[in-house]
Amino acid sequence: MSTGSPTFSVNHIWIFYHYSGKEGDRYKLSKGELKELLTSELTDFLSGHKDPLLIDKIMNDLDSNKDNEVDFNEFVILVAALTVACNDFFEEQLKKERF
Amino acid sequence: MSTGSPTFSVNHIWIFYHYSGKEGDRYKLSKGELKELLTSELTDFLSGHKDPLLIDKIMNDLDSNKDNEVDFNEFVILVAALTVACNDFFEEQLKKERF
Repeated sequence: MSTGSPTFSVNHIWIFYHYSGKEGDRYKLSKGELKELLTSELTDFLSGHKDPLLIDKIMNDLDSNKDNEVDFNEFVILVAALTVACNDFFEEQLKKERF
Repeated sequence: MSTGSPTFSVNHIWIFYHYSGKEGDRYKLSKGELKELLTSELTDFLSGHKDPLLIDKIMNDLDSNKDNEVDFNEFVILVAALTVACNDFFEEQLKKERF
């Protein structure tokens, strides 16, 4: 029986196009769009970092083909990395509670 | 302003542990648990494939450390691959509608 949770990937696609369609190429995130996505959707994550160059660093890491934009395949790398980090934290807490 | 969509990664973590906790190591998916996850959560995806060895092939592809179980980091690869495939389909449909 299904968990009833939303289907695997639709939320990430929806979030990506919500921001990528704001300016320029509607299928890619410009630096401004990426910044808006990160600050709007990941407020807690960003508020814990004081580095003023954080957005530039994330952009640089994700933009593997160096076209100064982030396409969906590059964006998925960020989603996967955040998911793994989030799980590491969750699993650690779970193990602490059990032992 | 946020899209209001669920936070990035929590659904996948929730789905993973819902199935991984059923037998054996609660932090890893056995082949049986992976099969149950795929058949319950991705019914449409699996119903389009007639290969009786599909689950074994997916298990073999994901289980990079060959311990016959799938941990969360290995599971994220599946989520990312499905997300990219889903987006490719969505983007193609979107482009067809526009031109």
